[in-house]
Amino acid sequence: MTEYFPEITQPIPFEGASSKNPLSFKYYDATKLINGKSMADHLRFSVAYWHSFRGMGQDIFGGNSFSRSWQNSDPLTEAEQTLDAAFEFFTKLGAKFYCFHDRDLAPEGASFAESCKNLEHLVEKAKIKQQKTGIKLLWGTANLFNHPRYAHGAATNPDAHVFAYAAAQVKHAIAATKELGGENYVFWGGREGYETLINTDMKREQENLARFFHMAVDYAKSIGFTGQFLIEPKPMEPTKHQYDFDAATVLSFLRSYNLLDHFKLNIEANHATLAGHSFDHDLTVASDVGKLGSVDANRGDLLLGWDTDQFPTELDEAVRAMLVILKQGGLGSGGLNFDAKLRRGSTDTVDLFHAHIGGMDTFARGLLIAQKIIDDGVLSDFIQKRYVSYSKDIGSSITAGNTSLAELETFVLEKGEPIPASGRQEMLENIFSSYL
Amino acid sequence: MTEYFPEITQPIPFEGASSKNPLSFKYYDATKLINGKSMADHLRFSVAYWHSFRGMGQDIFGGNSFSRSWQNSDPLTEAEQTLDAAFEFFTKLGAKFYCFHDRDLAPEGASFAESCKNLEHLVEKAKIKQQKTGIKLLWGTANLFNHPRYAHGAATNPDAHVFAYAAAQVKHAIAATKELGGENYVFWGGREGYETLINTDMKREQENLARFFHMAVDYAKSIGFTGQFLIEPKPMEPTKHQYDFDAATVLSFLRSYNLLDHFKLNIEANHATLAGHSFDHDLTVASDVGKLGSVDANRGDLLLGWDTDQFPTELDEAVRAMLVILKQGGLGSGGLNFDAKLRRGSTDTVDLFHAHIGGMDTFARGLLIAQKIIDDGVLSDFIQKRYVSYSKDIGSSITAGNTSLAELETFVLEKGEPIPASGRQEMLENIFSSYL
Amino acid sequence: MTEYFPEITQPIPFEGASSKNPLSFKYYDATKLINGKSMADHLRFSVAYWHSFRGMGQDIFGGNSFSRSWQNSDPLTEAEQTLDAAFEFFTKLGAKFYCFHDRDLAPEGASFAESCKNLEHLVEKAKIKQQKTGIKLLWGTANLFNHPRYAHGAATNPDAHVFAYAAAQVKHAIAATKELGGENYVFWGGREGYETLINTDMKREQENLARFFHMAVDYAKSIGFTGQFLIEPKPMEPTKHQYDFDAATVLSFLRSYNLLDHFKLNIEANHATLAGHSFDHDLTVASDVGKLGSVDANRGDLLLGWDTDQFPTELDEAVRAMLVILKQGGLGSGGLNFDAKLRRGSTDTVDLFHAHIGGMDTFARGLLIAQKIIDDGVLSDFIQKRYVSYSKDIGSSITAGNTSLAELETFVLEKGEPIPASGRQEMLENIFSSYL
Amino acid sequence: MTEYFPEITQPIPFEGASSKNPLSFKYYDATKLINGKSMADHLRFSVAYWHSFRGMGQDIFGGNSFSRSWQNSDPLTEAEQTLDAAFEFFTKLGAKFYCFHDRDLAPEGASFAESCKNLEHLVEKAKIKQQKTGIKLLWGTANLFNHPRYAHGAATNPDAHVFAYAAAQVKHAIAATKELGGENYVFWGGREGYETLINTDMKREQENLARFFHMAVDYAKSIGFTGQFLIEPKPMEPTKHQYDFDAATVLSFLRSYNLLDHFKLNIEANHATLAGHSFDHDLTVASDVGKLGSVDANRGDLLLGWDTDQFPTELDEAVRAMLVILKQGGLGSGGLNFDAKLRRGSTDTVDLFHAHIGGMDTFARGLLIAQKIIDDGVLSDFIQKRYVSYSKDIGSSITAGNTSLAELETFVLEKGEPIPASGRQEMLENIFSSYL
Repeated sequence: MTEYFPEITQPIPFEGASSKNPLSFKYYDATKLINGKSMADHLRFSVAYWHSFRGMGQDIFGGNSFSRSWQNSDPLTEAEQTLDAAFEFFTKLGAKFYCFHDRDLAPEGASFAESCKNLEHLVEKAKIKQQKTGIKLLWGTANLFNHPRYAHGAATNPDAHVFAYAAAQVKHAIAATKELGGENYVFWGGREGYETLINTDMKREQENLARFFHMAVDYAKSIGFTGQFLIEPKPMEPTKHQYDFDAATVLSFLRSYNLLDHFKLNIEANHATLAGHSFDHDLTVASDVGKLGSVDANRGDLLLGWDTDQFPTELDEAVRAMLVILKQGGLGSGGLNFDAKLRRGSTDTVDLFHAHIGGMDTFARGLLIAQKIIDDGVLSDFIQKRYVSYSKDIGSSITAGNTSLAELETFVLEKGEPIPASGRQEMLENIFSSYL
Repeated sequence: MTEYFPEITQPIPFEGASSKNPLSFKYYDATKLINGKSMADHLRFSVAYWHSFRGMGQDIFGGNSFSRSWQNSDPLTEAEQTLDAAFEFFTKLGAKFYCFHDRDLAPEGASFAESCKNLEHLVEKAKIKQQKTGIKLLWGTANLFNHPRYAHGAATNPDAHVFAYAAAQVKHAIAATKELGGENYVFWGGREGYETLINTDMKREQENLARFFHMAVDYAKSIGFTGQFLIEPKPMEPTKHQYDFDAATVLSFLRSYNLLDHFKLNIEANHATLAGHSFDHDLTVASDVGKLGSVDANRGDLLLGWDTDQFPTELDEAVRAMLVILKQGGLGSGGLNFDAKLRRGSTDTVDLFHAHIGGMDTFARGLLIAQKIIDDGVLSDFIQKRYVSYSKDIGSSITAGNTSLAELETFVLEKGEPIPASGRQEMLENIFSSYL
Repeated sequence: MTEYFPEITQPIPFEGASSKNPLSFKYYDATKLINGKSMADHLRFSVAYWHSFRGMGQDIFGGNSFSRSWQNSDPLTEAEQTLDAAFEFFTKLGAKFYCFHDRDLAPEGASFAESCKNLEHLVEKAKIKQQKTGIKLLWGTANLFNHPRYAHGAATNPDAHVFAYAAAQVKHAIAATKELGGENYVFWGGREGYETLINTDMKREQENLARFFHMAVDYAKSIGFTGQFLIEPKPMEPTKHQYDFDAATVLSFLRSYNLLDHFKLNIEANHATLAGHSFDHDLTVASDVGKLGSVDANRGDLLLGWDTDQFPTELDEAVRAMLVILKQGGLGSGGLNFDAKLRRGSTDTVDLFHAHIGGMDTFARGLLIAQKIIDDGVLSDFIQKRYVSYSKDIGSSITAGNTSLAELETFVLEKGEPIPASGRQEMLENIFSSYL
Repeated sequence: MTEYFPEITQPIPFEGASSKNPLSFKYYDATKLINGKSMADHLRFSVAYWHSFRGMGQDIFGGNSFSRSWQNSDPLTEAEQTLDAAFEFFTKLGAKFYCFHDRDLAPEGASFAESCKNLEHLVEKAKIKQQKTGIKLLWGTANLFNHPRYAHGAATNPDAHVFAYAAAQVKHAIAATKELGGENYVFWGGREGYETLINTDMKREQENLARFFHMAVDYAKSIGFTGQFLIEPKPMEPTKHQYDFDAATVLSFLRSYNLLDHFKLNIEANHATLAGHSFDHDLTVASDVGKLGSVDANRGDLLLGWDTDQFPTELDEAVRAMLVILKQGGLGSGGLNFDAKLRRGSTDTVDLFHAHIGGMDTFARGLLIAQKIIDDGVLSDFIQKRYVSYSKDIGSSITAGNTSLAELETFVLEKGEPIPASGRQEMLENIFSSYL
């Protein structure tokens, strides 16, 4: 059998922080127990099929810069070889999960029926691969943005025919995800948004999007798919305005259309920052209402205004993210998916290993530090004390919701001015830094 | 009686577009009927007490640059003189409404009781002014951000004592608004947000904010205040993250805490753009769910990352805003409030007139053009046709919510590929431009 | 002969502002004299070969959405048909100029020699087209960013072999531009920049860039090419940091490497705003030192962080641009090139006409208004008076450079505090708006 | 003598990384030798007089939130007490340098003469303090932005009288800096910029700025001040556009007006990022031409669009900065000045200690790591090899500047296509991270 990554002759080993071998893990020790759970089970790393095996370094100013041995002039052969390469990569890297879009796995055919047939063919092959390797599908999704038919959106397209096409495609993508034991199914709103309000009926488009989701929920139930449905917020790009702008916007949408029970969120770092939020902000917004389902672990460049989808290497961000995740008791059926791509100039297959090793080590280190911060309790104690006034006297009444403006005025007239208290931001930042 | 604007000897006249007199209206003709309603009633222009009479040109790099004849070393005298100046200005300008924070109108006293007394004193005087001039209060609000006690927020402060103080202050601000016949009461979340998540319990703070609003609703009911409660979104500044980030976030919050029936939104142009949205986007988000209550008409500088609060002079933005407003049948009890300030270097009182005239003419012109666009129907016809497929055949089923992924797949298998349709964005932009 | 735009049966006519025909000019009347010069000669409109004939609606999330009748499976046939289509378009539109990259005009071949041969073949054909139609080449340039060999830059590539390749390519592109009578030759720094400083020797890369330019200057002299060399600034995208960040940065570079005499700038609206500047700011920076050579007339979306390259429709921006251009006596050998592309969803060839008509009308209207503003002199008079103190007394000494801190202190000790003067920004903005 | 920081009973000790005492240094060990130079001499930490002793927590939405024991109703008494407090702080903290604006040190008087007298009085007192403590002045500067007379700029003011006033003020600020042995004198262009081009003659304003600098150079020479003149770039805020936008823009200005020999740059982290650059980018731009003179060590928030001036706590940024500084052989007469302020809610004086300790430890740790990265040579070796082709064959000719487009074409025709090489960005980022 062809080997696609011959430069890697054995699975990437854990060698510890002192190792100088760039092709080893310094922190990610899959079986190491952290608070009774293995690192692998905490982190549930997943590789993104599209960026790592279908992405060829192209950007808006240039075509493919990578040349991969799994490419082939025949689409179906290429798809099969890509599958082989992907599972070889997963195995050598030591990732336990992967994620895909339907059209990553199998090529679009000449007709919808042929596309479905292609997908089924590859799903069958992927199933065997999964069984052989023990690698699992974190989530599946449908690519509803690449094909020109979706230029004006899929479920929010002004043409009902396109809506129907998207619906048919999602039906098969959910079925494929079920077939492969996918633990979640993701909706990323590709082109669900608008370029200009001047030609758009935003209200109708959002109503249609809600109808689409309800049908997906019904379909999943009808076939017994019990994976978690996830929506992945993004504020812009490719469209000027994406309807799933950020976590708060998606929650508003789900509440508004009676969908909240059926969905959780898949929060991506780079999407959060494009929306003007820190990564841990959007994680917290989702987690606070029990809706943080999974994470796209990547990194943007805050000085650039597009989705750079870089591999995560920022330790402080990883610590902050893991704090949110640990506090909610882990990601459940979700995981940390590297929705990240090599830079156009990182042209070798070994770069794929470097990139994923960096991301995995960053989050492994983040897990270790976050657990230590939680165990030490210094930061959480500070917060607890800071709000202690809400647990007694007038504060208890406020918390219980059984006081009034008038009663609070009486309190103020009696007690006078509150005593200022420093928020100690600088000290706390120093303490946080001391863990890094 | 002292005259504060002696350079303006008569109310600003309407002179029409050909006038070269910078102290005249070129488009705002208060009594002119547009679609059966006067321009004044369409636009309901309001002057912001804080910026125009209390703002003295200060910025973060410099103190007062304005010197006003209504300033006085005694705070109460200054407050009285400011009131005189303000009503002289409203009258000479020809604005029908104004808006204030409690602490703009009357100075903070040595104690809460004294502050309340100051406020009552000025409210009494303002009431007389309103009766004499016919000028009305569009909305009142409480300043819960200037005083150091609110450094960590008001209703979201970690100290219950501060929460209580804010509650007491809002009680009086609502009462003052009622006393003056205010048609709305606004909550702008001054410092309701956080500087860093490291010292913040975001969930608790938002719950407290909801409790605060429920108490305000109860209080209003108890005193028979029937004005509309409004929340004004803003994403950042002064805090790093403001809880009322944008229209969608506020709607999510209101839905989540069972407050949606009691609130509408006051959308500010500059706040929308700081959140990454166009002005008309956030207006539309609010309007689509019947929650666009009022507007802060100003302008930011999209190349700058702070709230520049400039007077609105961009005709295309005004047209787009008026299109949303006209389509929802007007602003009801709301209005167009100029939450805008003179540039630090615009040091003369006559600049206040220039600034407001510019803002009023821009929106008057916007109204005229928006009405013409609606009357002509070219743009709305395009949209209607664009979505026509949802009114027939499979589209009707989608709209009615009585189809399924499976049925839609059957449709696609039969009908094949949808026919591409141009969104005609460039043509529509040209048509829009041709109205300007 | 094949007609590629059969939907346009005659050249786009000028019909005046009252016309409702979207396929007519409302303001651009080519032969109309403005201050003794025709509109056509003032504006020197140019069509961008790449976006309009080679761009197929692709973006980073999707492939081609346009299907054009000039596409062909054979690259050279496609190039010939594209040329036919382009000249048909120029003629029907009524644009007098076009611009190209070498690889737009002719396809990359299997070897450098073949690429050169392809280019020569198409240049020959283009020359005939130009002669037949009277349409001229505003500028040529070399595409040094699309091919993977340029992934790490061209003249700033870490590999001298790539530098050499770029040099060879530019040699032919300059020769082609000369052959076609191009009035300028543009260097846009495609990938001349860096992704990360961690693998980059910025100083060496900039020195190499300067060496490259000197060689180009020498080559042009050697073949007698007398067109103007232009550098087009852009701050980012595709690379994280582009060396030609903005006008000031490029001027600094040119001064530093003794290149100032040989280059002017080609300022693009969308690039200026990505750099944090208004369009007219960067135009003014260039014009103030006599270095504004040409303009890429397009529009970005200030709420988006990438180069959207939209067609210009903002009248106020066009007026401000034309004010700078008129004040410097026109663009000389430069012109207004529409470096702008159809939205992905504007899939029809007629959209190309709508888009260009909108851009041309916007700048024609901008020209009319700018000339009127200049003729009226209200704004320029204000500025002149504002600085009048520098023409007399101590101000003259400052201007002449023959005073000192000590002498100025003596002046201040005698004269005391200066008298504040309003900058009248709001009044001037109103006056400006009144012209729109 | 009054003690202003009684909560700190002894100088902040170095206790090492394992210490849990937040009021100790974990990394900054002043006398520890790094590559033969003490940490103190490498880092030359300086405290900013304005933020730390004159800043009272105010922001644009609220007045003072701090209350300090050195405040006094009499301005001169307050100035004297502030000086005492400042030197007590420097001593207890263990910083060797400080920086001031003239108006921080001494209050504006009723006349220019009185202001000068105030300044002289405080300079005399400061001189004694310096002698007693050994603490030195890193740099002085003049505050030319706070007073309303400077609303339209100082050296770029449209009124020559204001220009003169600024000149007189700078004369005394330079003299004060000389008197106190200041090693540098800084020009930060406070309001040297514009709000709108509509009332601005940008060219004249920049010429005036150049004339102003020439006079300052002449004056310094006349009094024998040999400190380094520095310009501190900033792109915006308070004005819409600041003339000293970034390092490249300032270098262009200095070159253009024949000032390059007399100035270096003072690069501030938060100003660099506001200009769209990383901190180390602007440091490198300055350093590459031998013009990196000093550093304002702070931190912005990349999700916010204003100068947040936070204390630096980001280790990776500090490492990158120290790499540039070490590579150029240190900062010479410059230093690391904490141009940073407490958050509004950090209301206690002990917060000043936490903040500075955090900043000093971050840069001390950055120094240690940067030196290790340099010593190991892994990253620099990679870069050296990456450009090795420029040291041989055709690359040598390019570097020597003795080749031509034609000769390079011959090379390409012979050698064909270059061989792609990965930039190894991800691997290098991992290696960099492994040092943190």
